[in-house]
Amino acid sequence: SKYNMEKENLSVVLHSQGDLRLEQRPIPEPGPNEVLLQMHSVGICGSDVHFWQNGRIGDYVVKKPMVLGHEASGRVVKVGSAVKNLKEGDRVAVEPGVPREMDEFFKSGNYNLSPTIFFCATPPDDGNLCRFYKHSANFCYKLPDNVTYEEGALIEPLSVAIHACRRAGVTLGSSVLICGSGPIGLVCLLVAKAMGASQVVITDLSADRLVMAKELGADFPLTVKREDGPEELAKRVEGLLGAQPHITIECTGVESSVQTAIYATRPGGVVVLVGLGAAMTTIPLLNAALREVDIRGVFRYCTENKLLSFTLPFISHNRALKPAQDIGLQILIVS
Amino acid sequence: SKYNMEKENLSVVLHSQGDLRLEQRPIPEPGPNEVLLQMHSVGICGSDVHFWQNGRIGDYVVKKPMVLGHEASGRVVKVGSAVKNLKEGDRVAVEPGVPREMDEFFKSGNYNLSPTIFFCATPPDDGNLCRFYKHSANFCYKLPDNVTYEEGALIEPLSVAIHACRRAGVTLGSSVLICGSGPIGLVCLLVAKAMGASQVVITDLSADRLVMAKELGADFPLTVKREDGPEELAKRVEGLLGAQPHITIECTGVESSVQTAIYATRPGGVVVLVGLGAAMTTIPLLNAALREVDIRGVFRYCTENKLLSFTLPFISHNRALKPAQDIGLQILIVS
Amino acid sequence: SKYNMEKENLSVVLHSQGDLRLEQRPIPEPGPNEVLLQMHSVGICGSDVHFWQNGRIGDYVVKKPMVLGHEASGRVVKVGSAVKNLKEGDRVAVEPGVPREMDEFFKSGNYNLSPTIFFCATPPDDGNLCRFYKHSANFCYKLPDNVTYEEGALIEPLSVAIHACRRAGVTLGSSVLICGSGPIGLVCLLVAKAMGASQVVITDLSADRLVMAKELGADFPLTVKREDGPEELAKRVEGLLGAQPHITIECTGVESSVQTAIYATRPGGVVVLVGLGAAMTTIPLLNAALREVDIRGVFRYCTENKLLSFTLPFISHNRALKPAQDIGLQILIVS
Amino acid sequence: SKYNMEKENLSVVLHSQGDLRLEQRPIPEPGPNEVLLQMHSVGICGSDVHFWQNGRIGDYVVKKPMVLGHEASGRVVKVGSAVKNLKEGDRVAVEPGVPREMDEFFKSGNYNLSPTIFFCATPPDDGNLCRFYKHSANFCYKLPDNVTYEEGALIEPLSVAIHACRRAGVTLGSSVLICGSGPIGLVCLLVAKAMGASQVVITDLSADRLVMAKELGADFPLTVKREDGPEELAKRVEGLLGAQPHITIECTGVESSVQTAIYATRPGGVVVLVGLGAAMTTIPLLNAALREVDIRGVFRYCTENKLLSFTLPFISHNRALKPAQDIGLQILIVS
Repeated sequence: SKYNMEKENLSVVLHSQGDLRLEQRPIPEPGPNEVLLQMHSVGICGSDVHFWQNGRIGDYVVKKPMVLGHEASGRVVKVGSAVKNLKEGDRVAVEPGVPREMDEFFKSGNYNLSPTIFFCATPPDDGNLCRFYKHSANFCYKLPDNVTYEEGALIEPLSVAIHACRRAGVTLGSSVLICGSGPIGLVCLLVAKAMGASQVVITDLSADRLVMAKELGADFPLTVKREDGPEELAKRVEGLLGAQPHITIECTGVESSVQTAIYATRPGGVVVLVGLGAAMTTIPLLNAALREVDIRGVFRYCTENKLLSFTLPFISHNRALKPAQDIGLQILIVS
Repeated sequence: SKYNMEKENLSVVLHSQGDLRLEQRPIPEPGPNEVLLQMHSVGICGSDVHFWQNGRIGDYVVKKPMVLGHEASGRVVKVGSAVKNLKEGDRVAVEPGVPREMDEFFKSGNYNLSPTIFFCATPPDDGNLCRFYKHSANFCYKLPDNVTYEEGALIEPLSVAIHACRRAGVTLGSSVLICGSGPIGLVCLLVAKAMGASQVVITDLSADRLVMAKELGADFPLTVKREDGPEELAKRVEGLLGAQPHITIECTGVESSVQTAIYATRPGGVVVLVGLGAAMTTIPLLNAALREVDIRGVFRYCTENKLLSFTLPFISHNRALKPAQDIGLQILIVS
Repeated sequence: SKYNMEKENLSVVLHSQGDLRLEQRPIPEPGPNEVLLQMHSVGICGSDVHFWQNGRIGDYVVKKPMVLGHEASGRVVKVGSAVKNLKEGDRVAVEPGVPREMDEFFKSGNYNLSPTIFFCATPPDDGNLCRFYKHSANFCYKLPDNVTYEEGALIEPLSVAIHACRRAGVTLGSSVLICGSGPIGLVCLLVAKAMGASQVVITDLSADRLVMAKELGADFPLTVKREDGPEELAKRVEGLLGAQPHITIECTGVESSVQTAIYATRPGGVVVLVGLGAAMTTIPLLNAALREVDIRGVFRYCTENKLLSFTLPFISHNRALKPAQDIGLQILIVS
Repeated sequence: SKYNMEKENLSVVLHSQGDLRLEQRPIPEPGPNEVLLQMHSVGICGSDVHFWQNGRIGDYVVKKPMVLGHEASGRVVKVGSAVKNLKEGDRVAVEPGVPREMDEFFKSGNYNLSPTIFFCATPPDDGNLCRFYKHSANFCYKLPDNVTYEEGALIEPLSVAIHACRRAGVTLGSSVLICGSGPIGLVCLLVAKAMGASQVVITDLSADRLVMAKELGADFPLTVKREDGPEELAKRVEGLLGAQPHITIECTGVESSVQTAIYATRPGGVVVLVGLGAAMTTIPLLNAALREVDIRGVFRYCTENKLLSFTLPFISHNRALKPAQDIGLQILIVS
């Protein structure tokens, strides 16, 4: 190897709040079911920035040095003895969450909810914003030839949107309200359209952001103001669509926006919570209950990464991917 | 007929808040798709009492005289010209909600959510606490010979519990927390057990009520106090079951109890809201969202009445029915 | 009116096998919940032709004169007294099936399975290949301004494909095998793609037909021969996709093709039967059972027509609609 | 230990067709995630007998010596270094299938379909009809104190029935036809009742077997003859229930019985195939397709074993378990 195994794994390591260092670390040796990857592209997620600036997210606290990064793609450079699905030279996307236990959540198809799951760059687990990184081979997905490394690194954030749209039950003909057109709102828009949503209203405080939403296929961009009442906003959404939306995907975490989401959604419909707000939230729960509007959260994703390694060219063909890079998702090319 | 068609339909009519009258009304003539019933047993629901004492429930206001009653059974005495499923003499249970329109909710199997539905004793629609009552033949269900009229009248409140347990996804092996052991909590307990729930914790402020719950099959009756903290209660529930319950059915409508319901439920589980509380509720929404605990309301029921006309003997056989009469459901025998 | 109500409703009437007549019939009077339509475009379905040439399809026998046609759009010219959702001048698509009874199938959201349903041009119910036709207002859907009458008439055949893809569970990332690229195979292709299918293999005996399939977005057109063995074909499909498809939509009804469908589908996947074959079919049922490959039929559709009136512009935008006219769906403009 | 680790693991080993030997084998050493069990009770399954007498089942061929047995319970005598869920002395039931790979089937909650799964006593994997056996700790389930070892060994065959009833969608009020009242038909009956089925018809050629079915709760035992026509039998079932059953669970694998299952089931209903028949089967597929009667197979089970370790006392309480031993399930007590 042209690399010195002991020294030459340049890594972005967060030691504690505000203390980010570029360090050499040993190049790890893959176990029997693992592969060693030479990383190519790693996205910078809001959570990476948050850990750096705050040293914690909720109960996850940086207590010892941790490599950042979890939106990643790379090339297989070494293969564990028991690995069958990959070989040296394969280009792969990395699913950052790997269940450690065959617990009830994993067994029932919801390994994202497994409390002992390994997850890149969530303390204390190291991420992959480094030159060399080893990972479970079963959670690396070979990229088709027509998917670039940069696109591969986008699979992770897109998976969040797919998981949200699946939990929402978006299908052909769904009418959808998306609250917030930041990066996550926009990828939800792209995915909802790719799943057949016929009409999408998307909101934001910033008219500028809505220009991008319009370009990405939003049918009704809707500029809102902080002082707009949730029930009044719900009426405006109904006016635009001619009926209440089947589904609302809330991507802001703001209390009044969650309230709007509930008032706006059609009886029998679904509100999915993607944005994270305060611990306690005051909402019109009676209104939701009597109209059987379900409220569902999302935590990361499950099986969606693999799905995307096949689906990306399709979404890309439908104009999803290229804009995804424009909408605020940052990618660092590490090699 | 031994009855004077113009005069002899003794009916319990609510004219306005507090103004309840026993009146003679004309005996109605069934339309082509309707049957005329001689009523036998009619339950007195909490909502009947509420309308009488308050003149309204939320947006439903008594503005003109309305016959009360919607938990009912009776005998077919006249059959509309187009009716095929019933004949004179049939003993039937009445499903009080009849959709008026073939709207999208009806077409997709959720007619309970149809905004224009007819519903007995919900203003302005008359109920059936009277001697003679006409109803859509398609929403009257013939009682098997081994089901009494009194049991037939219980089909309606039991349907609420079935709808709740279905929305919750109760199945063989489910562990369930039921908050509140009033009549609705108790029928939810009976139905959850009949659907295969393996372990049920049920709570109440009153130890007396929990005695009945224990008799009806609750595995863990749990007396709670007003001052108990929601997170602490959730821990106690987990302690009793050895794990968090898959499902929580909230039957009190009290804010702190809804909070307990969320904290207590297992990741990937479901909280069903049966109890009705205030318009706005403060809840740990972030906790629910990050653990993918779904929050679902219930509004009446849909298809459950018919189901019950077949299932009642089965539930009864499993000790459900007889106690149901003991647990606070009142029945008035009107003929 | 410029029309003579008694005489001027030119209609295509099938009297018996081979005896098709163009007749004047009275213009009907809509009932309270109906609208009178001046028909614009009516598709000619294979079943119309089949009734004309054979006098029957299975148990459905033409015993008295019957107007043909059920893929239709028109303009509202008269509105029943109780109709609220439509007004004179509205342009509508007609859903040809209208449930007559609020039976268990209708109540549970599957009115297509209701045995007493009215259905245009299925004996003994008259169709709408005529100048004036009355229909339940709840089963007429207003066309958006950007949908033409011709497109409106295509809603019915497209609904078959949507119902099939829904029953199959097609979603983002699905890999799909479609057996047969006649008109129904092609609309299934269009709909599967609109629902997010990432890879579609489509087969046919005719290479010419596959040219159209390729144009419509098929990833892998596959020419097959009558003598190809089902297991061998299944292998070729797996070779093209790199894995067995999640879903197979069988549109030929040919026994060997149903066998191929089963062998080809991934464990845990779904085979949907759209093509109609002989009464008895010999299939590798053990293979399907042990791999939990579900076998599901489709009968017409349910709620899909309304869905399409909103979704058509979306599908059209994705290149679905215009080609639909090219692929063998015939439309007659009747006014 | 009182046992000689090298010699004293008495095991029932099948060397080849008809060549069954009682041998001493070494006591295995558990890996980090495994436990060593001293076996207590092991059921003798039809498949054990079949391998012994035929040397194969379909593609599974005994090519080298294999320990038999997969319906088992035992006591933990040694714990791997990484095991957290169990400790020495725990009494456990063994789930015989352990996925070897985190493949797509495992990730999506269907590990029973994983092609590389380890499964006790399916060639080439050894079973547990022996004194000492090591197994993945995550696939051993601690038995509650009120469940005996013998009951624990019954969890495996009962899981087959639960998996079948879940795939069928049995719920409160379901009407069910079960074809065949051998051991598997009877456990399906028990489980269907425990899940809330209101009416069960069960058939058999032998009136004697139906006596047991009646005792176990069957509402309508139905003696059939080989020469009965499938359509005629379907009519008789409809006559008994007053309507076609929602669900049919076919437990014979006989072609004419599969035909009966299809004809008998209500439109929109489900036929589940538990019995295994010939490779090719001739069925009225058109009838199933046009009435949207779904056909679903079952392969072993998934998550049901763990479920049962909690649910067994509940089923037992409902009279399920004790009879289960009477109905033909054989248990060998090995220590």
